[in-house]
Amino acid sequence: MKYKIDITISLKGGMLDPEARAIQHALSNLGFNTENLSTARVFKIDLEAEDKDAARARSEEMCERLLANPVIHSYTIEVRE
Amino acid sequence: MKYKIDITISLKGGMLDPEARAIQHALSNLGFNTENLSTARVFKIDLEAEDKDAARARSEEMCERLLANPVIHSYTIEVRE
Repeated sequence: MKYKIDITISLKGGMLDPEARAIQHALSNLGFNTENLSTARVFKIDLEAEDKDAARARSEEMCERLLANPVIHSYTIEVRE
Repeated sequence: MKYKIDITISLKGGMLDPEARAIQHALSNLGFNTENLSTARVFKIDLEAEDKDAARARSEEMCERLLANPVIHSYTIEVRE
């Protein structure tokens, strides 16, 4: 069965995000005042797996082994059919 | 009123995404075979606006003027209270 997986990787709370600060500053210079801004990265993956649980387990393994840095990143996984 | 906005910026269909190909290749080397992989960038913004429509309009303007490159990117905007 094919699954569509969205893996969202963001910095853990408390981690400095200089890129987000730079973007917030640039937006502010253009007249857009934002109260808070954070960035995240999304990987949209099409995966063949036996069932939804297997797809999720495999995605978690991908995060742990390659996509995320567990020291600084947290991630969420959304599995759709 | 405060709104939480998720702006997702991805490459338009047909644009080459060498980073996604590299990640897919690296995953494959680790034994994770994916059928397709694409990347996107998310900006999570807290914004003060009069109503939901105003928040969305302001977010669109941010995309057009700074966050996205309209030539190569498409974007979706999600507004929550």
